[in-house]
Amino acid sequence: MCRWLAYAGTSVVLSDLLYKPEHSLIDQSLHSRMGVETTNGDGFGIGWYGSDAGTPAIIRDTGPAWNNRNLREIAGHVRSPLFFAHVRASTGTAVQQTNCHPFRHGRWMWMHNGAIAEFHRLRRDLSLAIDPVLFPSLEGSTDSEVMFYLAVTFGLDQDVPGAVARMAGLVERVGRDEGVEYPLQMTIAVADGERMWTFRYSSRHASRSLFCSSRADAIRALHPDLDFLRGVSEDTRLVVSEPLGDLPGVWNEVPESSYGVVQPGWDEFRPFKPEPV
Amino acid sequence: MCRWLAYAGTSVVLSDLLYKPEHSLIDQSLHSRMGVETTNGDGFGIGWYGSDAGTPAIIRDTGPAWNNRNLREIAGHVRSPLFFAHVRASTGTAVQQTNCHPFRHGRWMWMHNGAIAEFHRLRRDLSLAIDPVLFPSLEGSTDSEVMFYLAVTFGLDQDVPGAVARMAGLVERVGRDEGVEYPLQMTIAVADGERMWTFRYSSRHASRSLFCSSRADAIRALHPDLDFLRGVSEDTRLVVSEPLGDLPGVWNEVPESSYGVVQPGWDEFRPFKPEPV
Amino acid sequence: MCRWLAYAGTSVVLSDLLYKPEHSLIDQSLHSRMGVETTNGDGFGIGWYGSDAGTPAIIRDTGPAWNNRNLREIAGHVRSPLFFAHVRASTGTAVQQTNCHPFRHGRWMWMHNGAIAEFHRLRRDLSLAIDPVLFPSLEGSTDSEVMFYLAVTFGLDQDVPGAVARMAGLVERVGRDEGVEYPLQMTIAVADGERMWTFRYSSRHASRSLFCSSRADAIRALHPDLDFLRGVSEDTRLVVSEPLGDLPGVWNEVPESSYGVVQPGWDEFRPFKPEPV
Amino acid sequence: MCRWLAYAGTSVVLSDLLYKPEHSLIDQSLHSRMGVETTNGDGFGIGWYGSDAGTPAIIRDTGPAWNNRNLREIAGHVRSPLFFAHVRASTGTAVQQTNCHPFRHGRWMWMHNGAIAEFHRLRRDLSLAIDPVLFPSLEGSTDSEVMFYLAVTFGLDQDVPGAVARMAGLVERVGRDEGVEYPLQMTIAVADGERMWTFRYSSRHASRSLFCSSRADAIRALHPDLDFLRGVSEDTRLVVSEPLGDLPGVWNEVPESSYGVVQPGWDEFRPFKPEPV
Repeated sequence: MCRWLAYAGTSVVLSDLLYKPEHSLIDQSLHSRMGVETTNGDGFGIGWYGSDAGTPAIIRDTGPAWNNRNLREIAGHVRSPLFFAHVRASTGTAVQQTNCHPFRHGRWMWMHNGAIAEFHRLRRDLSLAIDPVLFPSLEGSTDSEVMFYLAVTFGLDQDVPGAVARMAGLVERVGRDEGVEYPLQMTIAVADGERMWTFRYSSRHASRSLFCSSRADAIRALHPDLDFLRGVSEDTRLVVSEPLGDLPGVWNEVPESSYGVVQPGWDEFRPFKPEPV
Repeated sequence: MCRWLAYAGTSVVLSDLLYKPEHSLIDQSLHSRMGVETTNGDGFGIGWYGSDAGTPAIIRDTGPAWNNRNLREIAGHVRSPLFFAHVRASTGTAVQQTNCHPFRHGRWMWMHNGAIAEFHRLRRDLSLAIDPVLFPSLEGSTDSEVMFYLAVTFGLDQDVPGAVARMAGLVERVGRDEGVEYPLQMTIAVADGERMWTFRYSSRHASRSLFCSSRADAIRALHPDLDFLRGVSEDTRLVVSEPLGDLPGVWNEVPESSYGVVQPGWDEFRPFKPEPV
Repeated sequence: MCRWLAYAGTSVVLSDLLYKPEHSLIDQSLHSRMGVETTNGDGFGIGWYGSDAGTPAIIRDTGPAWNNRNLREIAGHVRSPLFFAHVRASTGTAVQQTNCHPFRHGRWMWMHNGAIAEFHRLRRDLSLAIDPVLFPSLEGSTDSEVMFYLAVTFGLDQDVPGAVARMAGLVERVGRDEGVEYPLQMTIAVADGERMWTFRYSSRHASRSLFCSSRADAIRALHPDLDFLRGVSEDTRLVVSEPLGDLPGVWNEVPESSYGVVQPGWDEFRPFKPEPV
Repeated sequence: MCRWLAYAGTSVVLSDLLYKPEHSLIDQSLHSRMGVETTNGDGFGIGWYGSDAGTPAIIRDTGPAWNNRNLREIAGHVRSPLFFAHVRASTGTAVQQTNCHPFRHGRWMWMHNGAIAEFHRLRRDLSLAIDPVLFPSLEGSTDSEVMFYLAVTFGLDQDVPGAVARMAGLVERVGRDEGVEYPLQMTIAVADGERMWTFRYSSRHASRSLFCSSRADAIRALHPDLDFLRGVSEDTRLVVSEPLGDLPGVWNEVPESSYGVVQPGWDEFRPFKPEPV
């Protein structure tokens, strides 16, 4: 449906990752290789934390990313140690800012690729499960936004993997109650300004593509002449819907049904399993 | 909040009413005289029925009406016997197509000026009262769209004044349950392609301005040299948030807490009262 | 660069040709098969004449055609005997309404696929050759708009093929003076409300694709069960950048370096040759 | 026509000046008090230099500033020691990004309020006076952009006041040759990343309003409890089309027909006079 990129590590100018790579996210907006759609031109968004964490800035617009001059300007002038970028391919839902990713709630930022199957039939029940206090925050009409507020409802603030697992559990239960065999398809990135979590899961265990970059020192050993990620810390990581280029040893597929936390010292993905609610 | 214009009668080129009058709706988008806001620049919409009734065409956009070239082109080339036009002033709700009026459901078209007081607090309960079959049709985040689908839920297809009265009754009950003293403020136009209904009501009986044009023969008697409405049937009527000009005898204030049906032979407004549900 | 469609003949609802065909122009905006770019998502435009000819209506917008709801609404509610539609792929020029096609001058409508090679170097000299009275009409920054006003300057009103030939002659002379070997690449449609001319030409005689539909009676003989073009006059014709489907016998390649006039009784393309100026 | 704000001094978060003041530029976009138009809703732009000067970032969009969420996000997250902001009221020229201010050329940034009288008649001659090397950089259709490239043509890089004086001299000569009595009306801000120049001039010596803030120490003495400009250097200055509030002693009208350079140690406006070319 969409393509996304999540970065955490040493502060960089956004355009170094958004525009410069051979098969950058901007290029993917025009010519995705691994997406369900080749064109992701129904809006885009970026979100970044400043050096002081705090509330992230979110820029979203409804046109294609590839021809957006403001995006290029911002990307060329903003540095951040933790940022998200997303290009959207709508499957019928309105093309509007409030349906673009990332979504934000307080210091939290969320983006999604995938879909809740037959969302129009499940939407009401899922929306009702959102904490009534959060319900007025819904501004758009996507499954992704509902998933986000469900995760907030289920305790994102205390336990990210648990909240996402409960959100997924609810989606699967409500879906199956309605006769939807495989209700959920998702790759998700979520951050609080200090850490970044990514999830890859689908009810049929055939999830959308997701890749994580290798440790910076490993990449440097393989490609000593590489500008990419030069001067960044070992723990810096990119998680992307599809690789930004073809270099061997740089990109590793995220395991099916797993999640990871990008933070200092981190090194592995753990199994992800929806939790019944 | 907004300004609107509803026309029913002899088929006319839209621009004759949208652009030509001295204080046209387009002028009101820049300089409203009677509105809560003087500027109505947060989106606009028009909807029109063709000569065969059927599903109306709806054009909505997020910029101001006054500088929109496409609106001017369409208005200058489309004729219709029944059309709506609306210019929006948001009070914080997202500026997006799906929050612009008119709204459409099947052959029905709906637009609104006013507000549900403290809608963010009432939104969830009101949304839940919408027929679950209609719930997935919600695309935006306005009170106006929720009011529309509530009216559809309450039988717009069978009994327009009754359905609107029940919608208003629900809004007032839910509002008062939440401690909102005056929950509803509305002027509404609704049409099915053959007839057009307009409503003026507010919980505190101090409703937003609404005016109805006099019968065409009466206007012609007063202003024999007037181009305005020349050659139109006697029953042709304009209902507007504020008069399109200063001519005496042309515009009549719609009575407080009333509704009218613009149709052949029609001649009076009737009292409107919310109906408990 | 772009894809376009030009229709002249029996009045039809625009969406029958813009949306319904298997490989419609809207589909081409996402997945062009024969274009230089596969995605034509940098704006679009339609222009149509009413039943009384007169000034055409022109609707242009900067987003992709494929997700534009207003385009779908207009196309579904407007009938026309002569209309143009265009989807744009920019090669760097600003994405703005005034760079979208069709362009209009009085009753004339013009659209283009192709490019003036190294236009940035030739733009000033070509702009200066535009009649000074027309110069203030330039609103955008495309080669296509300059070509249009040059054709108007060179007598479009009196002699369409001659004016276009002189425009092409000037572009080639100015280009070659600047050392550009193959200055011009163009398929063009131009109309005055009664007739429609189309041109296919390039300096290197390797022009962008262009196809013309067969006579309606010939198509009906081949495909008796075909809805497409049912009930239209024999002289009705579609000229398109690429075929709207795969039916044999429906689409004929327009000859290299030729032009045609779609009008009653018309039946052949004639050679096109730039004229020195 | 428009309203603008130019800031130079101690680095601040943009929103402190764009959104927080009582009568901020954002408020002026809805309710200008001293402008020719009260509404400035036909696009906006901001441009800022980073701490290392270099090329400024330029963000421009076509909708109103007051409801633009991306502008609010950027303004809330970007700090700059030198930035411009502009809200536009078009007088018929297309509403498009390339007609929005500021304009940029290399490290230079330029914005304008005012007009060249009867620009459509003078546009061609003025455009021809632009250095042919710069001509292809023209992307829009405004007088302001032409004025900018004329100033660049006339040596902005070497001598800002001289280049602007020659630009003004040319406009007046070309205008008067065409019978325009008072060709020029302008308030201009221009910057190179280190310094900022502002100009106030009109052919009839009745220029659009322009105000400059007092020295920060003077303001602090008058209003010791004022947050506004707290902690900034003495030489920090704001130049604005109209004051951002009503505090006495804060705002000084820029003298008619004068210019100033905001830089350390600066303290006065000097006379401005067009220079014949």
